[in-house]
Amino acid sequence: MASGPARRSPIPDPVATRLSLYLRQLETLDRRGLKTISSSQLAESLRLTSALVRSDLSYLNFSSTSRTRKIGHSGMGYRIDELTALLRCTLGTDRLWEVVLVGAGNLGRALLAYGGFATRGFRLVAVFDCDPKKVATSYGELSVRPVTDLVPFIHEHSISLAIIAVPATDAQDVADTLTAAGIDGLLNFAPVSLRVPDHVALRDVDISVPLEQIAFDVTRRRQITHLS
Amino acid sequence: MASGPARRSPIPDPVATRLSLYLRQLETLDRRGLKTISSSQLAESLRLTSALVRSDLSYLNFSSTSRTRKIGHSGMGYRIDELTALLRCTLGTDRLWEVVLVGAGNLGRALLAYGGFATRGFRLVAVFDCDPKKVATSYGELSVRPVTDLVPFIHEHSISLAIIAVPATDAQDVADTLTAAGIDGLLNFAPVSLRVPDHVALRDVDISVPLEQIAFDVTRRRQITHLS
Repeated sequence: MASGPARRSPIPDPVATRLSLYLRQLETLDRRGLKTISSSQLAESLRLTSALVRSDLSYLNFSSTSRTRKIGHSGMGYRIDELTALLRCTLGTDRLWEVVLVGAGNLGRALLAYGGFATRGFRLVAVFDCDPKKVATSYGELSVRPVTDLVPFIHEHSISLAIIAVPATDAQDVADTLTAAGIDGLLNFAPVSLRVPDHVALRDVDISVPLEQIAFDVTRRRQITHLS
Repeated sequence: MASGPARRSPIPDPVATRLSLYLRQLETLDRRGLKTISSSQLAESLRLTSALVRSDLSYLNFSSTSRTRKIGHSGMGYRIDELTALLRCTLGTDRLWEVVLVGAGNLGRALLAYGGFATRGFRLVAVFDCDPKKVATSYGELSVRPVTDLVPFIHEHSISLAIIAVPATDAQDVADTLTAAGIDGLLNFAPVSLRVPDHVALRDVDISVPLEQIAFDVTRRRQITHLS
């Protein structure tokens, strides 16, 4: 691999996840009209330590743009618009990603209706289902395509990202089809662990997990209260 | 606080999150007909280290039930049904949690249609919205109630958990109302950081974050390929 002053350490996954959270928070602060923020203010707003936020932000390549730089010295803060742009550039969401969705059941339709993707640089460009009764049904601007069209569509439109929202029993087959078709990244909503080749990025989402974690938090606090 | 042989170290949040993942994986393996699993097999199936899985499982109170115990010695494995039951008991999902949903927009309706909560011990018992046009509309067994009924409903039914699926601009007001009404735990889908009292458990879910992380993974791999 090439090396030189522009190369930085690879960003670990937990750091990358927090960069997403910082981006969300900066967007919120921007909507409130704030212009600058210090790492300690950002940390405090997210209930993280300043040291962690500073360490995470040290992974960003502030020299990649002449405009994005710390304003003054440590603790003086960042321009929110510039830090936002640098985070988007780092995360790869400063471009538009076209995404296909497989599965037009309840969850798939919910994702079609979900407004959060579009504002993040992701556009759902097609939805596929194996159920003939669902094919040709329209949701917003998209009408459901037969799953047999999936591979030709991915090739024709050079799609990189796909969302899997099919039943658990079908998810591995869909993942195999998508990876064989050349997909680079998969977001899996099916409640099952998928196997994909190493070169394919995969994340699983189970929205019942955070609810379970809250139940755990509440249970734990009640036990502590009960015992104290 | 009381202390004694039954007290164990508090379970750190990252461990608790992985306990949820172990539970998901055990349920999947159970559906495949498996009866026992070793910590190393469980680790391998989730691409974690055996040491991490063993460390996490050491937080479980295996003595809490006479039936749940390791089968034989290290590496011999656990009975999947017993480990599943112990995880549910630890996470507090061995009971039914009644949950209210605030917000009957696209996301709220998606959550109403989502089947994943019911199988995890959570039952959506009521949905509320401030939009008079949405009130009384039925989704499945539930019909949307006016948000003015929220507090009396929580009191009457002793509800502990609530899901917030309202626009970002309304989310803090809703959170304030819910916490004042005595809610113990909040799952927030609004793309905003909420402030709640320390005694209230709060988790935020932004389903565009994992998609952003995949975009990051793909971008990073392309850069490495480009540079190598």
